[in-house]
Amino acid sequence: MTNPGELKQASKLINTAAIAQYAAITDDYNPIHMDAEFAAKTEMGGIIAHGMLSLNLIWQALSATFGPDVVTRTVLDVRFTKPVRVDDVVTGGGSLREGTSGDYDVWVKNQNGETVIKGSAVID
Amino acid sequence: MTNPGELKQASKLINTAAIAQYAAITDDYNPIHMDAEFAAKTEMGGIIAHGMLSLNLIWQALSATFGPDVVTRTVLDVRFTKPVRVDDVVTGGGSLREGTSGDYDVWVKNQNGETVIKGSAVID
Repeated sequence: MTNPGELKQASKLINTAAIAQYAAITDDYNPIHMDAEFAAKTEMGGIIAHGMLSLNLIWQALSATFGPDVVTRTVLDVRFTKPVRVDDVVTGGGSLREGTSGDYDVWVKNQNGETVIKGSAVID
Repeated sequence: MTNPGELKQASKLINTAAIAQYAAITDDYNPIHMDAEFAAKTEMGGIIAHGMLSLNLIWQALSATFGPDVVTRTVLDVRFTKPVRVDDVVTGGGSLREGTSGDYDVWVKNQNGETVIKGSAVID
């Protein structure tokens, strides 16, 4: 089977409800994610979403493209390049690297086309 | 500042409630995660938890050790090595690599000490 050139994409609205749900399931209530007044005074200059809410879009893209067991045969390498803010819409996707059979450049971008996560997913 | 030799650890019970919550926030209702009868007939031999529920423990360990902005200065490289099953308790942690100032071997293990995720986190 030849792997597709482009991953199916997955998008999510990162609103305060999503952040609150994510905080609840992970017990991660750090005020940088929850408290606008606190977050405004930090270096981040306002609330940032949990990075995993965005990273998940890469897994959703991989899973939509290859099926859910892809997680067990993928090496993922990622860097968070830009914070995600409340009410951003983030989209995850990826492209097959030229000359490879299963190495994807993967990314998550916000609604302005800015890359918030970039990395690679190498599929066995 | 010298980075610590060991990350603070974080643990989570991955029960059906956690899986359902995670499915709800990600819209990932794949039956491999939700439907015991379906999952039993697959190669996985039963329900597996969403990989991100476990991967999150590495971020929690990093965040507990360095603060939540660590996400913006970390390159994470991970491989899922073993499925996580309903009612597993998974723990994330990591150790500083000898001779480095901020390269951690990171892992998530289940209650039997089996590694379910392994990788590295390189912190700027």
